[in-house]
Amino acid sequence: MEQPAGARDQRQASSCFSHDFNKLSAWTQLEELARSPYDLTAPGALSPVRIRDYRAQAAGFDLLYSTQRVDETVLAALQGLAEESGAVAQFRRMKKGAVLNRIEGYASEERQVLHTACRDIFAPVSLAPAASDQAKAELEKLADFLVALEAGNLVNEAGEPFTDLVQVGIGGSDLGPRALYLALVACKIPGRRVHFISNVDPDDAAAVLNGLDLAKTLVNVVSKSGSTLETLTNEEMVRKAYVEAGLEPSRHFIAVTGKGSPMDNPARYLRSFYMFDYIGGRYSVTSMVGAVMLGFALGYPHLIEILRGANAMDLAAEEPDIRRNPALLLALLGIWNHNFLGCQTLAILPYSQALSRFTAHLQQCDMESNGKSVTRQGKALAWESGPVIWGEPGTNGQHAFYQLIHQGTAIVPAEFIGFRTSQHGRDLLVEQTTSQEKLLANLLAQALALATGQPEDNPNRRFAGNRPSAVLIADRLTPYTMGALLALYEAKVVFQGFIWNINSFDQEGVQLGKKLATRLLAHYAGLRQDSGYSGAVADVSGWALLEAAGMLLPK
Amino acid sequence: MEQPAGARDQRQASSCFSHDFNKLSAWTQLEELARSPYDLTAPGALSPVRIRDYRAQAAGFDLLYSTQRVDETVLAALQGLAEESGAVAQFRRMKKGAVLNRIEGYASEERQVLHTACRDIFAPVSLAPAASDQAKAELEKLADFLVALEAGNLVNEAGEPFTDLVQVGIGGSDLGPRALYLALVACKIPGRRVHFISNVDPDDAAAVLNGLDLAKTLVNVVSKSGSTLETLTNEEMVRKAYVEAGLEPSRHFIAVTGKGSPMDNPARYLRSFYMFDYIGGRYSVTSMVGAVMLGFALGYPHLIEILRGANAMDLAAEEPDIRRNPALLLALLGIWNHNFLGCQTLAILPYSQALSRFTAHLQQCDMESNGKSVTRQGKALAWESGPVIWGEPGTNGQHAFYQLIHQGTAIVPAEFIGFRTSQHGRDLLVEQTTSQEKLLANLLAQALALATGQPEDNPNRRFAGNRPSAVLIADRLTPYTMGALLALYEAKVVFQGFIWNINSFDQEGVQLGKKLATRLLAHYAGLRQDSGYSGAVADVSGWALLEAAGMLLPK
Repeated sequence: MEQPAGARDQRQASSCFSHDFNKLSAWTQLEELARSPYDLTAPGALSPVRIRDYRAQAAGFDLLYSTQRVDETVLAALQGLAEESGAVAQFRRMKKGAVLNRIEGYASEERQVLHTACRDIFAPVSLAPAASDQAKAELEKLADFLVALEAGNLVNEAGEPFTDLVQVGIGGSDLGPRALYLALVACKIPGRRVHFISNVDPDDAAAVLNGLDLAKTLVNVVSKSGSTLETLTNEEMVRKAYVEAGLEPSRHFIAVTGKGSPMDNPARYLRSFYMFDYIGGRYSVTSMVGAVMLGFALGYPHLIEILRGANAMDLAAEEPDIRRNPALLLALLGIWNHNFLGCQTLAILPYSQALSRFTAHLQQCDMESNGKSVTRQGKALAWESGPVIWGEPGTNGQHAFYQLIHQGTAIVPAEFIGFRTSQHGRDLLVEQTTSQEKLLANLLAQALALATGQPEDNPNRRFAGNRPSAVLIADRLTPYTMGALLALYEAKVVFQGFIWNINSFDQEGVQLGKKLATRLLAHYAGLRQDSGYSGAVADVSGWALLEAAGMLLPK
Repeated sequence: MEQPAGARDQRQASSCFSHDFNKLSAWTQLEELARSPYDLTAPGALSPVRIRDYRAQAAGFDLLYSTQRVDETVLAALQGLAEESGAVAQFRRMKKGAVLNRIEGYASEERQVLHTACRDIFAPVSLAPAASDQAKAELEKLADFLVALEAGNLVNEAGEPFTDLVQVGIGGSDLGPRALYLALVACKIPGRRVHFISNVDPDDAAAVLNGLDLAKTLVNVVSKSGSTLETLTNEEMVRKAYVEAGLEPSRHFIAVTGKGSPMDNPARYLRSFYMFDYIGGRYSVTSMVGAVMLGFALGYPHLIEILRGANAMDLAAEEPDIRRNPALLLALLGIWNHNFLGCQTLAILPYSQALSRFTAHLQQCDMESNGKSVTRQGKALAWESGPVIWGEPGTNGQHAFYQLIHQGTAIVPAEFIGFRTSQHGRDLLVEQTTSQEKLLANLLAQALALATGQPEDNPNRRFAGNRPSAVLIADRLTPYTMGALLALYEAKVVFQGFIWNINSFDQEGVQLGKKLATRLLAHYAGLRQDSGYSGAVADVSGWALLEAAGMLLPK
């Protein structure tokens, strides 16, 4: 696969980032401060001045953080932590193409990290010109493709336009694209629909295929390596359905893959779009991985708006003052809560049904990036890395798990996401307020309730308070703000990785499960070929587990 | 609202359950044992004998627990914990109608807990006859309603049959019913469809209404109190759509509510079905809350199969030997991992796309039940109560957050759920194995990989192992096994609450947020009525937060 020029020059330089997080002077300072964090339950603790001043703005978003357990001293220490760890400097180096996906002294991916280059296409000169040029070239191919669909130059066997698209992919080729599609389905091109097949569970593909008119459907197969087991299996299942329907797959299938991968094969695909190894799956939404499907569904101008919003947030993330850099500030507040106040999880709670799958995307983006145990020098971590990320949209969650957030024995920091106006504009006054007002009043009320708590004689109705949260709010969920929000969280994750001194860009932790699954599958293949086969000799535990699960019985 | 006879007699008796979890002799024993838990990474630790023997069976499910960090001594101590805390005795008392939803000495709900009575309808004599009789009476009403729909006696204004149903509800009236509908959509009546509106986000209702033929659609409004803000608001929005479409809502709307609630009004609803205050929302799937929708979608016989499966698991949950009681064993293993091995969260990972929303239901069922800070006597807990529950279906999750589960700094216990055969039966051999085999091989491989780990010179490719998991497996996801799985988790949650000595049946923790939301909404209403209105005097923080969020600007 290709790497833009200049990669080698940066390699040497990238190794200069190295620190033990727990030996930074900011660590010592924050440890000390964590003994008496700001008391949000004290009278007047949430003063109007504090609420007004504890706000960071960028790319259409306000980050309100008065309900965090921080004061001026803690914020100064967090600013110090950002500087001491070189967070912004590393971010800028990343955008310029430094080889940050590596573990020094050990075999590792040795790659640049250039998802930001996909949207650094509006300035006269990009920070990573070679990668941005590749992104622009793919965008132009995509624009041509979309025009051909629109103009009726690209049609099915019967001369009809394509109305539907099925995205076949998993992980980064599924979660982020799906989250953005659902977020923006309100602005899609009328008559166009997108569907997703990801799970190797055959029921997943079957359920999607059951409701489709295949003749009018495009299938977008997305796999960087061209060898993802689930995706290839699902592709085969969908191809079989086309053949059974008397349709020619190569007139319906398009590919998003690495140049030169097994899937880069014009005989099998109507079009191929490229992705590059300097963009990891979980950071790939704004590359062709998401762009082809989003362009089909929303139209090219909306796609460009997503990139524009993301680019605006990428620029804001270069700001060294943490109070003017929401992504960095959110990263630091997360570290304060996680490493110093001892909170093990983070709830991300969008008050917008359209963001129903955004938290699932962030689970991948954050936990696959920062669920690590060694430093970038291969040393075992002596501090906690990434938290468990979870959440569901409000107000639904309020009627589900908020009981634990308010009164459980564990403290769960929360990040609320909201918008001042609704997408559809279909609303109603009930008891003198609109639904959108109810939604937002609930969001803010949760932040207040978690912070201030409530004394009460009945111990079961007592709220201890001092449960930290932050509020992210923008005017409306549009392609632009969606792009900005996506980039904000991408940058937040990357900043935390820089500060923890871990490699946020590999995923060696998924390999062992894959390897053992292959071993277990070999037993099935063995049984299928040889009725006397027994895997027991080579793989005692695996064989016994298959037996105990009742999965080696005759079918 | 009504209570079955006998409630009062049980009240006195219920107060005899009281203990400090950390003063039980089993606690001391388990604390000691937790210093050197079973080492799953030792050679031969996962022997075929262990794998075969560490299996509990009930109601079509096998629970495999060889990959937990337990040995015979720990299991004996857990058996002792179950007995010392009276877990099974309390469960039986619950099923018979004891008033277990209470806090002694303080104002509390003072209710029985009788969701099990909804399915205790197959034996000649129920454990709680009055409640089971009420359940049977509602089931008969429902059967009549479904027959009328089927026979064409109940049709729309144009004499056409109803094809669609929209369930309007939130929390327990949404998550569990939705999870079961999605789980069983493969066995639905052809041509019938169900949709859900839950969130007060107006975009949620708008998105559902946009795609519907209202004329052929029933609307099932579900609220026990008949006063849930979100549900009433959404009901109004849907009613408005009917009126605008020239349709008469009372010919389309049905109600599931408490007898005597504001919604119990025949003039506004085609039919009313009753729910009772001895069944909490999060335990209400098998009451009319889920049954009306599931009966419409799947047909009455499938609904009865769900109840039959749940009943079978409820019976198995009365078994005192923890090795023959999967629900109790899972509860105890959870406590071992959470309270003694220090794991703060639990991942529930179904390898079945149909169970895509089951974890969201369990988030509510578990976290709203056990996210508590006081004992049933109102004392502050000196031990951890319920963990954070989260998860997504496999294999999707493998490509997302499993990195952290395998290599993160926090240990995340996992519960895997799988089925030996697929629902749709549409499958394909790729590389000599079916998709269903790939799915299950991946599930078991994850359990093995988490347990055994992998030594490796490259520290970034090292897996520490000793990460506990359990596997729940059944033949196929059917109405019966779905009912059993639901009841298994309900019982698990309840057992943990009994052992922690907390009230798993109230949710006082959601009240403060509601109260503050009402206060913030009053500001909007005030502004709407009086342009000179300022809430600043009465509610300094709330007003300032609305202002900082930019939500008091002129629209």
